[in-house]
Amino acid sequence: MKHTLNIWVIGGDLRQVKLAQLLQNDGHAVHTFGLENTPESVCEGEETLMGVQRADCVILPLPVTGDGVVLNAPFAKGEIEVTHVLDALCREQLICGGRVDEQTLMLARERGLTVHDYFAREELAVANGVPTAEGAIQIAMEELPITIHGSRILVIGYGRIGRLLAHRFHVLGAKVSVAARKWSDLAWAEVFGYGVEQTDQLDGWLCGYDLIVNTVPTRVLDEDRLRELKEGCLVIDLASKPGGVDLQAAGRLGVKVVWALSLPGKVAPITAGKAILNTVYNILREQEA
Amino acid sequence: MKHTLNIWVIGGDLRQVKLAQLLQNDGHAVHTFGLENTPESVCEGEETLMGVQRADCVILPLPVTGDGVVLNAPFAKGEIEVTHVLDALCREQLICGGRVDEQTLMLARERGLTVHDYFAREELAVANGVPTAEGAIQIAMEELPITIHGSRILVIGYGRIGRLLAHRFHVLGAKVSVAARKWSDLAWAEVFGYGVEQTDQLDGWLCGYDLIVNTVPTRVLDEDRLRELKEGCLVIDLASKPGGVDLQAAGRLGVKVVWALSLPGKVAPITAGKAILNTVYNILREQEA
Amino acid sequence: MKHTLNIWVIGGDLRQVKLAQLLQNDGHAVHTFGLENTPESVCEGEETLMGVQRADCVILPLPVTGDGVVLNAPFAKGEIEVTHVLDALCREQLICGGRVDEQTLMLARERGLTVHDYFAREELAVANGVPTAEGAIQIAMEELPITIHGSRILVIGYGRIGRLLAHRFHVLGAKVSVAARKWSDLAWAEVFGYGVEQTDQLDGWLCGYDLIVNTVPTRVLDEDRLRELKEGCLVIDLASKPGGVDLQAAGRLGVKVVWALSLPGKVAPITAGKAILNTVYNILREQEA
Amino acid sequence: MKHTLNIWVIGGDLRQVKLAQLLQNDGHAVHTFGLENTPESVCEGEETLMGVQRADCVILPLPVTGDGVVLNAPFAKGEIEVTHVLDALCREQLICGGRVDEQTLMLARERGLTVHDYFAREELAVANGVPTAEGAIQIAMEELPITIHGSRILVIGYGRIGRLLAHRFHVLGAKVSVAARKWSDLAWAEVFGYGVEQTDQLDGWLCGYDLIVNTVPTRVLDEDRLRELKEGCLVIDLASKPGGVDLQAAGRLGVKVVWALSLPGKVAPITAGKAILNTVYNILREQEA
Repeated sequence: MKHTLNIWVIGGDLRQVKLAQLLQNDGHAVHTFGLENTPESVCEGEETLMGVQRADCVILPLPVTGDGVVLNAPFAKGEIEVTHVLDALCREQLICGGRVDEQTLMLARERGLTVHDYFAREELAVANGVPTAEGAIQIAMEELPITIHGSRILVIGYGRIGRLLAHRFHVLGAKVSVAARKWSDLAWAEVFGYGVEQTDQLDGWLCGYDLIVNTVPTRVLDEDRLRELKEGCLVIDLASKPGGVDLQAAGRLGVKVVWALSLPGKVAPITAGKAILNTVYNILREQEA
Repeated sequence: MKHTLNIWVIGGDLRQVKLAQLLQNDGHAVHTFGLENTPESVCEGEETLMGVQRADCVILPLPVTGDGVVLNAPFAKGEIEVTHVLDALCREQLICGGRVDEQTLMLARERGLTVHDYFAREELAVANGVPTAEGAIQIAMEELPITIHGSRILVIGYGRIGRLLAHRFHVLGAKVSVAARKWSDLAWAEVFGYGVEQTDQLDGWLCGYDLIVNTVPTRVLDEDRLRELKEGCLVIDLASKPGGVDLQAAGRLGVKVVWALSLPGKVAPITAGKAILNTVYNILREQEA
Repeated sequence: MKHTLNIWVIGGDLRQVKLAQLLQNDGHAVHTFGLENTPESVCEGEETLMGVQRADCVILPLPVTGDGVVLNAPFAKGEIEVTHVLDALCREQLICGGRVDEQTLMLARERGLTVHDYFAREELAVANGVPTAEGAIQIAMEELPITIHGSRILVIGYGRIGRLLAHRFHVLGAKVSVAARKWSDLAWAEVFGYGVEQTDQLDGWLCGYDLIVNTVPTRVLDEDRLRELKEGCLVIDLASKPGGVDLQAAGRLGVKVVWALSLPGKVAPITAGKAILNTVYNILREQEA
Repeated sequence: MKHTLNIWVIGGDLRQVKLAQLLQNDGHAVHTFGLENTPESVCEGEETLMGVQRADCVILPLPVTGDGVVLNAPFAKGEIEVTHVLDALCREQLICGGRVDEQTLMLARERGLTVHDYFAREELAVANGVPTAEGAIQIAMEELPITIHGSRILVIGYGRIGRLLAHRFHVLGAKVSVAARKWSDLAWAEVFGYGVEQTDQLDGWLCGYDLIVNTVPTRVLDEDRLRELKEGCLVIDLASKPGGVDLQAAGRLGVKVVWALSLPGKVAPITAGKAILNTVYNILREQEA
């Protein structure tokens, strides 16, 4: 990892732009393709994929594609097909991409290529937890007419996001409870000073909260539970599809729900780009070892 | 303070609405005047000031008036003159108001009335520090493309707001420095784990920050210092008029400055209303003692 | 778990004494055996094991035995054999014990008994992490001529104890670094604001610390690494046998090492007894479900 | 302050030893007198006071003397009289001492000397608050059979020590309440997330605590209040003479009280020496300005 690499960053949003800049700052020879229309100028934008053959490492966007066909490249001057990119790569290169779908994996395999999914790595998930947690705090501050300090907050789920969130609300002075299923998760929540609830036994205990943040991708907040919430209680759902809240019931009951997905790229693209950088470096280190 | 009081809340914004509700929750007989058009219904809105003579306690808004003539009452159905209110009060009543101006004090004195300024009390200033600090954090989260976690932040001034802010940024994972003049303030900042800078000697040390929050109402950030900031550094000015930042220079230099005043009523009116309530209760306790 | 149980607490140290008291406070019918000589009187001490047949639940000590033969019962008036106890129990009872050894398991199996090991449960391990971490802090405060605040501390290992320790040192104002092997552990340490080091690559980076706390049960601090420590650096080893420090080398080099084992029962027997109580309750709940 | 100074450190304990070493590390020419028998060798120990005339700055111990006659110099090989030292100094020198008594001030004045009291300075008091707070935590950890985490703690007084202590207990996971007299102190305690009590109205509210730490030098804990404490409640008194606890009543009632004075020099002499260093530097800077 001491030497200078030839790296291509292809497609993506502000995170990839930042990633390219950071790679260049670290002394690598960086080329970009499909980032033409970015707000700030990026290093050595290429007109074509000619020259990508000489790359040591190629970094595809997060996600690589939305539909399995077109590369996710909102800043490109035109549409780029995934196959157009894959056709230009060779098997000696380290190819990385984020949230790589089955279709792309298959297309790569057909060409003898391996795509390493940086988004599947634990350390990126942890690092992304920070902007997600901050994004949720920002939403809570924007929506609630009370301060986080002194408010009563329930965090459902005690995985990565749950931990980072409960910690932040706690240090900001909120009275935090955590709902989880596993005794060991509840034990962790307790040693960090939060109140604890069994997720199964939440019925009848939801009326005391000013804010409920869900991180669990199963229907935890159904109509019956939503009915319990006190007036003005805000619900933030961070769970990926299908989400953990019955949105229709919430609408009928007048409960305000903010379903917030993909926060890192939205609230802190630079931090998110840096997290991808660190993960790509880890992949490179492991390949060399 | 155990007994039931007859309390009138006259004019004001959402904070006064909340104040009235909280007083009623505590069992007092509450009447309002000049809060007709509030978004939510308020307890016993009166058409006139008839009956205010029977009040034990009268609470005027914050500020009482903007121009010394008209009561600050954005939810009133018509304009209310300060003298109209004062004429209806009597000297046995406990009269409270926020940020009471010289003109109002004089008008009151002419009628033999004393107006206690709840905004002048230290405990309200402290309590208001929390929504101010959270408001500043919200702005930082909204404006910056990086997370608070890991960012380098300078807080100028270590009074009430400076303390609450530095603490919050620190626990959210930022690298916080505090600039102050007094050795003892710097000693406090140090024992809480922040970096410290002499405000007089900031020149040449400003290029490392992602965010600078000023809390000092003197021109701390003049053109020379603004010129030092690194690209993308955000400045939040919490200082009351005339503020601490040379806004024209900032404009010329392309430095983004958010001058944020009166945050408590904007970001957390309910919390701010509750803080007024506690202060009024303290004034009542002292009158009784 | 709503009903009253007949519970016997047999043998053990102050933790079991506290456990018995807490069970009684919760309304259960509690009997003890082998806790005769405790400093404070315990509920219904029995002379013999007669009557233990009627117990719903029997709680053996932590560990059950030191040598596989004699029950761990420092407060008993005489020696009690493990088989003497097991012979008196019946298979319908819920039998719990701590750190149950192979020999005891076999003896129990021969009698058709199942012994549930409360010490093997994750939630007890987490709860015990708190007194362990506080015990380590106490040692550091006693031994070091500097404050925790401002000192540079390396925590080796980021499992349960490592997490709880790093957190505490950090909030007390120390500059904390964490050494771990897994990228994801390092990512966690980073999002909580600590410096990070790869355990494999510590050589050459150990001279800056005032305190090193090891939590990993492999020889992490060998002679070469100990030689790097700056004068006066304290080493606390929390790893179970064989420990992580070359004690002989440390002796030769004049490095002060405190090898601290089994802290919970020593520094906070009441808290430790309560943690066992909660775990036994969880086992009971699961049996009923 | 950029130039090299000639500094004499005369008498004192481990703090002065450390102070001398730190001054030397900073490049000053340092001489000591009355520190002969220190555990570790100190820079340029002098046999006599000859040469002290050439000193730019002379630092006397903390306190300068216990009885107004003999210098506080436990590491000296013989008794040193205060007048012996003062006779050797001249008025152009910056002379500093800690907790300078009336008698010494008078003796100095007679010789035309001014002694600057570093202990009287706010920034030293703040810095000393850290080792004091850590010392109190260490005592609590040593004496209590429960963890700080989860325990209920009352801190009486919200001055320097009270603030630093309440903060530390809070972040270690205790449930902290603060008792104070002023509304603004209570407001501060509240915004930092602690429970609050009026010191005047503590009667009847003391039975819930596991630990009470007093920082107020008036008799706050008299017999009636001590009688309220629950069994096993520990009292730590940090108040200077006459202390805040009726020790005789405590003895009669079997309440354990630890009266802990002068903790900085005992628990963290190096940190305490460094704090004196910083303060002396501030005095020097002010003299130059």
